[in-house]
Amino acid sequence: MRDLLPDEAEKLRFIERTAREVAKLYGYREIITPVVENYELLAAKVGEENRKRMYVFEDLGGRKVALRPEFTASIARLVAVKMATAPKPIRLFSTGTLYRYDEPQFGRYREFWQANYELFGSSKPEADAEIISLTNNLMEKIGLHDYHFKTGHVGILRGVLNQEGVAEEQQNSVMQLLDNKDWAEALRLVREAGGSKKCVDTLKILFEIKGKDPNTVTQEIGETVQDYPEALEAVRNLCEITNLLEAGGVEAEFIIEAGFARGLEYYTGIVFEVYVPEMDVALAGGGRYDKLIELFGGEKTPATGVAPGPDRMSLALEKQGAILSLSEEERIMVIPVNGELVGEAFRVSLILRKEGFCTEIETMGRSVSNALSDASRRGITYVVIVGPSELKEGKVVLRDMKREEQKIITIDEAIVELAKGR
Amino acid sequence: MRDLLPDEAEKLRFIERTAREVAKLYGYREIITPVVENYELLAAKVGEENRKRMYVFEDLGGRKVALRPEFTASIARLVAVKMATAPKPIRLFSTGTLYRYDEPQFGRYREFWQANYELFGSSKPEADAEIISLTNNLMEKIGLHDYHFKTGHVGILRGVLNQEGVAEEQQNSVMQLLDNKDWAEALRLVREAGGSKKCVDTLKILFEIKGKDPNTVTQEIGETVQDYPEALEAVRNLCEITNLLEAGGVEAEFIIEAGFARGLEYYTGIVFEVYVPEMDVALAGGGRYDKLIELFGGEKTPATGVAPGPDRMSLALEKQGAILSLSEEERIMVIPVNGELVGEAFRVSLILRKEGFCTEIETMGRSVSNALSDASRRGITYVVIVGPSELKEGKVVLRDMKREEQKIITIDEAIVELAKGR
Repeated sequence: MRDLLPDEAEKLRFIERTAREVAKLYGYREIITPVVENYELLAAKVGEENRKRMYVFEDLGGRKVALRPEFTASIARLVAVKMATAPKPIRLFSTGTLYRYDEPQFGRYREFWQANYELFGSSKPEADAEIISLTNNLMEKIGLHDYHFKTGHVGILRGVLNQEGVAEEQQNSVMQLLDNKDWAEALRLVREAGGSKKCVDTLKILFEIKGKDPNTVTQEIGETVQDYPEALEAVRNLCEITNLLEAGGVEAEFIIEAGFARGLEYYTGIVFEVYVPEMDVALAGGGRYDKLIELFGGEKTPATGVAPGPDRMSLALEKQGAILSLSEEERIMVIPVNGELVGEAFRVSLILRKEGFCTEIETMGRSVSNALSDASRRGITYVVIVGPSELKEGKVVLRDMKREEQKIITIDEAIVELAKGR
Repeated sequence: MRDLLPDEAEKLRFIERTAREVAKLYGYREIITPVVENYELLAAKVGEENRKRMYVFEDLGGRKVALRPEFTASIARLVAVKMATAPKPIRLFSTGTLYRYDEPQFGRYREFWQANYELFGSSKPEADAEIISLTNNLMEKIGLHDYHFKTGHVGILRGVLNQEGVAEEQQNSVMQLLDNKDWAEALRLVREAGGSKKCVDTLKILFEIKGKDPNTVTQEIGETVQDYPEALEAVRNLCEITNLLEAGGVEAEFIIEAGFARGLEYYTGIVFEVYVPEMDVALAGGGRYDKLIELFGGEKTPATGVAPGPDRMSLALEKQGAILSLSEEERIMVIPVNGELVGEAFRVSLILRKEGFCTEIETMGRSVSNALSDASRRGITYVVIVGPSELKEGKVVLRDMKREEQKIITIDEAIVELAKGR
């Protein structure tokens, strides 16, 4: 597991803050669930691969517990139990750390960060469009560019398989194989599960369909599945969502892939992942999962959502050479000329902080010249020197560290001067 | 462990945000260390009581690990290893969750929150004064009142015991007993460890000394320990710190107790805890711990810091009946009159969000009147209705939900109107 040193931590907190801001702008309220939960709950629907990678242990009360490998189970529990009677729609946001015992590799950590936006209660395309719109807004706000939404619709694939009588469990395995891009094995399984030659041929064509213009691609998909009414219904749904986004002025780039699925069994509709050209891991993933709450023992509740990964977004910002001006504001250091004036230096620093200036005070008892070289090494932008002769006139020395200029002025004048730099 | 539902989560995030703001104002940079660390590291100096309450387990690689019961060990590791050559002073901030298998009770949770401010490298009183000043500033900023700093100085007690030849290990046990307010047992141990009658008498008097005015109390303590030069030095240090705060205009209330100690062995100087009259658990605790880095294998490094507890601060705000106006801003809901206008409603909501207004969109496909009653139940302040006839004139209906008034205006006019409410 990692330590995040100040520059990395600052970037991560910036992304987290922006994610929270977007949640607020879209009406999603934050909830906080615990890192440690009952093993059975967390393991129930996490998928075989992630179940093996969970951190599992017994607590001192002898209960089998685990560190959460994803937010889904906890949020589903909360919605099913504590919010069962809340008026719909319910919009929830959460953010925190998740734990998987993976081999560490680029963009994957054993402790990693995730944000979550979930909208419960609406089965309408506007709910899915909202999720994509807010994801797009988040990517924009943190300063990423050239990202796209890799998009599919599990309903199209399931529609075909349903009509062919392929059992749900086998469908789930097919989705898992598609998620791993194992097309050949997926087709083999469909044949084994009783899929007709026509079905296999249809799927083969679907797996090849891919394009940027939603209208063209959905039309092509529609023609391919024209004999499968349920699949056609799903194509119409995908079309409605992308049309809504276009009509609403959401400028998101799509690459629609008819054969793209997400592995977890609760996905039922549109699915998407966000990528930048510089990285081959997804920055966010989401979609519609109408079966989720039901699977966790609640009432059948339509649901759609997205989970962006702040760790990976931070890497993407780095790869795209984004310059975050996070630490570029004025930083002030107050230096007392001698030990007698430390109290006075405290007073001055409190006044500056009250005005909102980030203000350090010299606490090492160093001489002014030593403190000044330290200030310069730390990238301090202004120094306020509190000395006895200036103090008699109610003044201080304000030194501009970049210009290497200084003047003797009152604190009020110094505040005006410092505010200019903002 | 707990779920924090939206209102509670909002309060906690507000405190966390304010803590981060204070860190920035005082020049403390944030670091993030992992929740899971090596057991040996975490257990080394945590103290017997908390060691028993740790969540310990083996990871899949067979390593004995644990959930952090405090931040100290991780931060000491980081400073000793990764920042060994960084120029002093080093000011660090961190915040997150800690884990202890306690019996749940008022103000104590198995997963709880803590913020941490640590200043490494300065042994001067201004460093301790800075820590108290920022703690005070944090309490002020979140809106607490009538809190006080219960303050002692471990150096006074250790100064007396050193001169009496009481071994360090026994001193540590004495401090632990004092932390638990077990005065009688502490005195017994001092006698057993070879403390003279004079020493025991001195300590007895010290344990009774308590008062609000730092000058009076420190004078009284000074007179009591006048035959113990090292203790007198510590009294002088305590005096310097409180004088600095007074001279600096920091309006913190003190209750100085000469017999107050904090149990962990690395404390060496001033120690304090923050209390409100309404609760008997501390909202923050801190002090000087010059032995910390050394204990974790680094070079001897003077250090002082404080750890406020956001959970408890949140409880204190509640107890004090603080009204947080967190959710009191304008919340807007955009309702399309029919399904054809959902795209247009999306467009309008994007414009409003760009202006910074928190804007939900109707996603349930409900009629305007049903959506309006939902909006009113949710405490939405303004509704924007997108209808075909208004749209033809480039207008929308803006409805003030509190006044139950509405007018037909352009989006630009609506923005001006909404901005008035800010």
